[in-house]
Order: sequence, then structure tokens, then C-alpha cells
Amino acid sequence: VLQIRYSLNDIERLAGGVELLGGTNLEVSGISTLSEAAPGDLTFLGNKKYKSEVADTKASVVLIPKDYEGKPSHNQAYVIVDNPSLSLALICREIECRLWPKPDPSIDKSAFIAANAKIGNGVFIGAGCVIDEGAVIGDSSVIQAQSYVGKGAIIGEQSWLMPRASVLDYCKIGKRAKLSTGVVVGSDGFGYETIKGIHNKVPQVGHVDVGDDVDIGANTTIDRARFGKTLIGSGTKIDNLVQIGHNVKIGKNCIIVAQAGISGSTVIEDNVVIAGQAGIAGHLRIGKGSQLSAQCGVNHDLEAGSFVRGTPAFPFMMANRIEILKRRLPDLFKRVEKIEEVLQHVTEPAPKSDQ
Amino acid sequence: VLQIRYSLNDIERLAGGVELLGGTNLEVSGISTLSEAAPGDLTFLGNKKYKSEVADTKASVVLIPKDYEGKPSHNQAYVIVDNPSLSLALICREIECRLWPKPDPSIDKSAFIAANAKIGNGVFIGAGCVIDEGAVIGDSSVIQAQSYVGKGAIIGEQSWLMPRASVLDYCKIGKRAKLSTGVVVGSDGFGYETIKGIHNKVPQVGHVDVGDDVDIGANTTIDRARFGKTLIGSGTKIDNLVQIGHNVKIGKNCIIVAQAGISGSTVIEDNVVIAGQAGIAGHLRIGKGSQLSAQCGVNHDLEAGSFVRGTPAFPFMMANRIEILKRRLPDLFKRVEKIEEVLQHVTEPAPKSDQ
Amino acid sequence: VLQIRYSLNDIERLAGGVELLGGTNLEVSGISTLSEAAPGDLTFLGNKKYKSEVADTKASVVLIPKDYEGKPSHNQAYVIVDNPSLSLALICREIECRLWPKPDPSIDKSAFIAANAKIGNGVFIGAGCVIDEGAVIGDSSVIQAQSYVGKGAIIGEQSWLMPRASVLDYCKIGKRAKLSTGVVVGSDGFGYETIKGIHNKVPQVGHVDVGDDVDIGANTTIDRARFGKTLIGSGTKIDNLVQIGHNVKIGKNCIIVAQAGISGSTVIEDNVVIAGQAGIAGHLRIGKGSQLSAQCGVNHDLEAGSFVRGTPAFPFMMANRIEILKRRLPDLFKRVEKIEEVLQHVTEPAPKSDQ
Repeated sequence: VLQIRYSLNDIERLAGGVELLGGTNLEVSGISTLSEAAPGDLTFLGNKKYKSEVADTKASVVLIPKDYEGKPSHNQAYVIVDNPSLSLALICREIECRLWPKPDPSIDKSAFIAANAKIGNGVFIGAGCVIDEGAVIGDSSVIQAQSYVGKGAIIGEQSWLMPRASVLDYCKIGKRAKLSTGVVVGSDGFGYETIKGIHNKVPQVGHVDVGDDVDIGANTTIDRARFGKTLIGSGTKIDNLVQIGHNVKIGKNCIIVAQAGISGSTVIEDNVVIAGQAGIAGHLRIGKGSQLSAQCGVNHDLEAGSFVRGTPAFPFMMANRIEILKRRLPDLFKRVEKIEEVLQHVTEPAPKSDQ
Repeated sequence: VLQIRYSLNDIERLAGGVELLGGTNLEVSGISTLSEAAPGDLTFLGNKKYKSEVADTKASVVLIPKDYEGKPSHNQAYVIVDNPSLSLALICREIECRLWPKPDPSIDKSAFIAANAKIGNGVFIGAGCVIDEGAVIGDSSVIQAQSYVGKGAIIGEQSWLMPRASVLDYCKIGKRAKLSTGVVVGSDGFGYETIKGIHNKVPQVGHVDVGDDVDIGANTTIDRARFGKTLIGSGTKIDNLVQIGHNVKIGKNCIIVAQAGISGSTVIEDNVVIAGQAGIAGHLRIGKGSQLSAQCGVNHDLEAGSFVRGTPAFPFMMANRIEILKRRLPDLFKRVEKIEEVLQHVTEPAPKSDQ
Repeated sequence: VLQIRYSLNDIERLAGGVELLGGTNLEVSGISTLSEAAPGDLTFLGNKKYKSEVADTKASVVLIPKDYEGKPSHNQAYVIVDNPSLSLALICREIECRLWPKPDPSIDKSAFIAANAKIGNGVFIGAGCVIDEGAVIGDSSVIQAQSYVGKGAIIGEQSWLMPRASVLDYCKIGKRAKLSTGVVVGSDGFGYETIKGIHNKVPQVGHVDVGDDVDIGANTTIDRARFGKTLIGSGTKIDNLVQIGHNVKIGKNCIIVAQAGISGSTVIEDNVVIAGQAGIAGHLRIGKGSQLSAQCGVNHDLEAGSFVRGTPAFPFMMANRIEILKRRLPDLFKRVEKIEEVLQHVTEPAPKSDQ
């Protein structure tokens, strides 16, 4: 399904190869790990730990560091490079550009564009998109098929909405952002005032402000603010199926892994890493550079540089220690029982004095 | 991006102001908290705890209670009201109506409407919608762009489907319901009969019946019943990314927070609150008015009025107590060790009789 | 909303009934459990545990085993069958075919089909679908409304995409697969190289390869590989809102329940069952036939046949035992306190010798 095809010479050039060992008429049409590679694949020795796998790999071409001693098998070539991982990254970037070239500017005739929407220069808008009243699409941005940009919403320059992304009314996306399929930016905040058991909706009249260079993963949802704005700082990367509540403020260059959830009005400072399925209660402050482990549940403020795990979350080392002691509980119960027995003998009057 | 603009007089009128202090030609175009407000913002003193922030706020207009002592700064006005929080809510409701006026009845020409679908009076159907065979759209409802209403599905009067909501075949939505973007009502229940390691799908021929005044959050999924119906009671509010399994019955006026999951055939009685990321196993009954803490995992029935936390969930106070004791485990292990040492001295024959 | 209607004779025939007791002109238009059934419903005694409910059921028709002793009430019929559960399954399968007959082959005129896409024989493509460049749609497949099939993607024969399913560029779906609404196959893997606090995206140039007979639930997301492929084995069934990271390899006939998450590069062997909201860290191997309990968090390899629970996960029986001991911690602390008191008396010099 992927239509890549590179000659050995292409690989050598892209990889910055300094030397070539083995067959010359080879072609690769796939990339794989040393152990999983098949003929026709490119592979690489990125970590010395896997050195022993090189001799047995079936890959046609191997990116290999200078200090590797060994020779390619029949119908195989080694491309000697300074740093195989870096070389692979360069090749992957080239492949990425081939597989996803920026589409030529155009607006599909099936797209619905409101009369007063502003479409920048060099914009691509795919089939079935809806760009609602007063929306602004920045220069050189790509709005793939079936996406929705609501009333008064703003998409920054060079941003890319994958198919079926949604930016709801009055929300703002920065420059060079990438929104994946099914993303919802600007759903209503979840706020109710309960009177005699009936939940009355609190109007959610704020918006969402997403910074520059932000990635948002598939089917992730970000709620609009009650008033003011929900804020996603520039450079922050968000994975799939994440929930971000109303009025949350996320700093710059944070990482938020899949299925994590952040409750309303919480502030996440810069460079925080939130692992998968973690949850953070509302109205908290998570200090700069903190790291939250997978599935943890945070219910209090964290100072800068915290590293926590567990529900409720507490410091990583302490949580680890308690985790180990928890597993020794069966033993502890037995020891206490034994102590009680011994103590009974010690404290009760000896039944027979001559024993 | 939000296009609100109110004069001081508008604010005074909407807020039910009883007195006005300070400048008169002011305008506001945003709402913010006391500490975050900038010139041009409206703010309010909703909680006495923040009284000290009033003097320093940069907001142009402040909603303030009668008993506050202090004066607006230059280019600032105080609107004196009985209850600033209530006044703000009134203003927000007015803004909500302005930002999201009910669209005029119309059916976009790009929408696909099956010949035998029944469209009520005063209905709006946006671009790219699909209303399938035999579907019924109630009077005065709004079906925003790209939504899907399946075969034989019924949408009640005055309900509102946000862009890209889906109500699949034969499902029913009550009156005044609001379905957010990406909602899926009526996905197949997850049921298989496993024979010799092969999973054979159990037909899921029931539907979903959603009551009146129900809100369903972005990308939430609700499965159709194996047979009969999955039921969401009137007045229940569901947040984003929630999963509700087949044949679940949810009572009236429940609150289900983001990323919670309810397994098949479980019954949730009225007025239950389920916090974020909580999970409930299948075939259980959760009694009326119960409260389930964030991330808890419930694997047994709960009687009415229960308040639980933890995985597996148990009563809140007991869980809290155990949580505290868990943190004292390192100390407990040390104490037991010490006891064992002491006891050894006590019980073993004294090494020297004259000590 | 569901338009089923069967005569008693239909039911008898479909159920493979061997005898009929009671009224003959009955019709059913719904299916329900014994206790919830109303007149007009079909019900069944599938489990002897519910035998006592038969006499009181209001259902019009009851599927009943041969050894049941009792008679139908007025306006009620019993259909005697060998295996009521199996008979019900046969009836449900018939209903399923009626409610969801395979649509006649056709391509809606509003669908966007790229000029070089290949559409097989007998294919249905609904309103608003987008089939992008070079995509291949296998014979007899059904692509419901608003679905998206990306560049170079391949959909196998007889597969069924429900409304708004997405198969992104270069991904491959096997035969007889069923993708529910909102599914995203082929979102970018979540990989960044962080240099001086800035997260640089690692190109994700692989794809997703989904086997035959795979079901994928609503709003589930499956990431494309960094290179090579993310693999979902044939016969595996995935529920709603599940996250599967890049380069994950899932074996055959696995079951993955709602809201579970699997991190990048993890290998799940055949016949593994992963319960709801469970999380698995990256780069692990989960042995064949393992069972992971709901909400568990797995952070190490599991050998074949493992059965785990908890976060971090450990063997089920041990985890259960520790769970019970945890609840006895308040008691244990008291016991240790008492021991310390007693010990103090034993070890300290007696204050008065004559006591």
C-alpha cells in the first residue's frame, strides 16, 4: 500500500553514506527492524544492543556505523554512516514528503464555504468541507476532506487539518498546527448548576485558543471556556482520545499522551509530560516540567519538577517503595500473627512451672 | 474571535444593576476573572475570598455586591448588584443567544434527505448532512453540518445536533437534547460468542432510547442494545469521550463526567454522579444518588446514596483511611522489625546469666 | 423505531420449535428479558436461574426448554425448543438481516471518488463519502455515508464501513471487517525527538494493516507505524474508544474492550483478552491467551496464559489477596500498636516489684 521505492544510490545519498559494502543494483520498498526485515527492506543498526542481529537480518540494505565489523551477505548492501538513527530519520523525512506532498492550492467544488469566510492564499480545501460564516483560513493551510471550521473560527497559516477535523465556532488555531482526524476543538464545557436535582446548563461562551506548532491527536476533545479561553500553549503535542476541560490552561511544549484527561480550570505549566490515561482534577496547578506517570490520578497541586505516580498520585520513589511493601503484606500479616503468639506465651502465666 | 461588545449601559441593564460607580463611556468585549482581566473585560466578585483582588483588577467593568467597600479606578466602572454570580450568568445567557442564535429554518441543498424521511416544521439541516430512510426530524430541531441520522431514527422536537453528530439506525432522541460533535448514538453492542477461540458476533438488534433534555458530549459513544434498548433517562448530562455499553439503563438527572465507561446491562439509578475516568463493570445496579469518584472501578452493586472511590471501589471514608495507612507502610514494616528484635531478646535464653 | 413484526408461526419456524402451547394468533414486535417484557414481546428462558420469572412474564411469546413444567397464561404462547438461547440467536440473526439488509450496489452522486480509485464489483458507497487517489475498494463492500478512504488505502472484500469511518492514507483493511462510526485507522504515531525542550516530530511513514474479520468500535483510533506497520490480526475484535499506538502488533482473535490503550511497539499475542480501561506500556510482549482485568496497568512482559489485575498489574490471585489485606490495614496498625504497648511492659523494669 505504501508506494516507496528507493535505489541503493538514493539511500546512500539520503543517508549521507561514507562507504558502501556489497551489491549495487539493490532497491528497497520498505523499512523494518533488523529482526523483522524481509528482502526488499531497508534496516539499520541504531543501538549496539542489537549488533548480533545484523548478521541474520534479511534486509536488502543496512545502515551501519563505522565501527561495525562484518560483511553483508549475498544480495545485501551495507551503507556505512556516522549515525544510523539520524540517517534513517533523514530518509523517513524524505519519504514523508513523498507520501504527503502538500496538495496544490484548490477548493473542492463540493465544499461549503460561507460567503463571508476569508480564505487565504495557497489554501487547499478538500471535498465535503464546511467553512462557516466569518471563518478565516490562513495562508498555505490545508483543510482536508470533510473537515468543519465553525463560525468566526480562525485557522493559522500553514496549519493542516486532517480529514474530518472540527474547529467549532469562534475558536482559534495557531500557525503550523496539525489536527488529526476526529479532533473536536471547542465542544461545550461541562458545567451545570443543579437546583432541586435538575441540572441547568451554565452557558459556555468562551472559546479555545490553540498556539503555534501544536499537534492534536485523533478524536481528542478540547472544551471551550465558560468565558475567556481554554488555552493550549505553543509547541505542545497532544495524542489521541485526550480530554481537556473548559478553561484549562496548558503551557508551552507539553506532552500529553493518549486517553489522559484534564479537568476544568487546571493550569499545566510549560514542559509538563502527562502519560497515558492519567487524570488531573480541576482547579489545580501542575508545576513546570512535572512528569505524571501513566494512569495516575492527581488531586492536588504539584510543584515544579514533580514526578508522581499512583491514584492518588504521590512522589514516584515513595510510590514505588509502597508498591513493593504492598506485595509483602501477606508476609507482614503472618509476622504480626507470630509475634502475637509469642507474646502471649511471654506475658501469660506459665501453665506449668516445671516446663 | 468572539464578537461580543457591550456598553456599560447594556451591562447595567442585563445585570440588573442597582447603582453605578465610575466612568460611563466604557465598553466591554470579553469576560475574565478578577486576576486575569485586561482593559476591555468585564469581571465580577462572585466569592468574598477574592475580595482583595478587586482593587488590582484591570477589568473595565466589575460586577460588585452592595456591601463591597471601595471605588473603581480610573477608566473603570463598578456595577452594584444583588448577586454578582447570578448577574454574570444572566449576561452569559444573553451572550450565548447572540453567539448561537437559532438558525433560520432551512435545508442546505448539499444535504442528503431520503425521500421518505419526515422533516418537521421549522427545522434547520446544515451542509453535508445525511438523513436516511424513514428518519423523523422533530419540529424546531437543528441538525448542524455533516451530521448523520440513520434509517428509522427519531430526533425529538427542539433538539440540537452539533456538526458531525451521528444518530444511527432506529435510535431515538428525546426533546431538547443536545448532541455534541462526534457523538455516536447506536454503535453495535460489543458481544461475541467464542467457539474454539473464534469470536462470533452476537447480533445487536436493539436500539438506543435517549430521553428529553439530555446533553451528550463530544466523541461519546453509546451502544445499541443486544435486543430491547439502551436507555438514557431524561435530564441526564454526559460529558466527552464517555462509553456506554449495550443494554445499560441510566436513570434521570445523572451526571457522567468525561472518559467514564459503563459496561453492558448495568443499571444506573436516578441522580447518580459518575466522575471522570471511572469504570463500572457489567450487570450491576448503582443505587439512586450514588457518587463515584474519579478513576474508581466498581465491580459490585452499590446501594442508594453510596459514595465510593478506588479500584476496586469501596466506601469513601474507609478508602481515605486506608490510603493514609498505605503511606505509613514503610514505618509499619520498621516497627514490626524492631518488635521482632526486641522479642528475640526477651524470649531467647539470656546468653549470660549475670547480665 | 425498530420495525420488526413476527407472527407466532414465524417465530416457531425460525426458532426450530418442536411444540407449541397456547394462543395462535399472536404477533411480536420486540424482544425483552422475562422480567422486562411487555405484551407484544418475545422472551426466552435461557438460564434455569430465571425459571421462576416465566410464570409472571408479560411477554406474548416465550421460548422455553422441553423440561419446563408450566403453561402459558391467557394470550400467551410457549414455543418449546431444544435450546432457547440458540433459538433466540437464530431469530436475532434473521432480524439483523431484515434491519440491515446489504444495500444494493450503488455510488451516491454526492460521493467524491478520485479518478484513479478502483471500485470493485457490487460496492455500495453512500452520500458524502470521499474515496481518495489510488484507493481500492474490494468487491461487495459497503462504505456508508460520510466515510473517508485515503490515498492508496485498500478495503478488502465484503468489508463494511459504518457512517463516518475513516481509513487514512496507505492503510489496509482485510476482508469482512466492520468499522464503526468515527473509527480512525492510520492516525500519525505519537513520536517526538525532544531537543532543548522543543518536540520535533519523528516522521510516521508506516501504515496500518488490519486483518480479516476484524471489528473496530466507534471512535477507536489506531496509529500508523513509524515505519513498517501497525498490525491487527485476523479475527480480533476491538470495542469503542480504544487507542492503539504505532507499531503495535496484535495477534489473532484478541478481544480489546472499550477505552483500553496499548502503547507503541507492544506485541499482543493471539487470543489475549484486554478488559475495559486497561493500559499497556510500550515495547512489551503480552503472551498468548493472557487476560488483563479492567483498569489494570501493565508495565512488564507477561508470559502466555497470564491473568493479571491492578496498577501495576500482577497475578490475579495475589492481587486479590493483597486487596483483602489492604482493607485489614486499620486493624493491623492497631495490633502492632498493642504489641508495642505490651512489649513495653514486658521489657521495661517493673515499676513496683510487689504488683
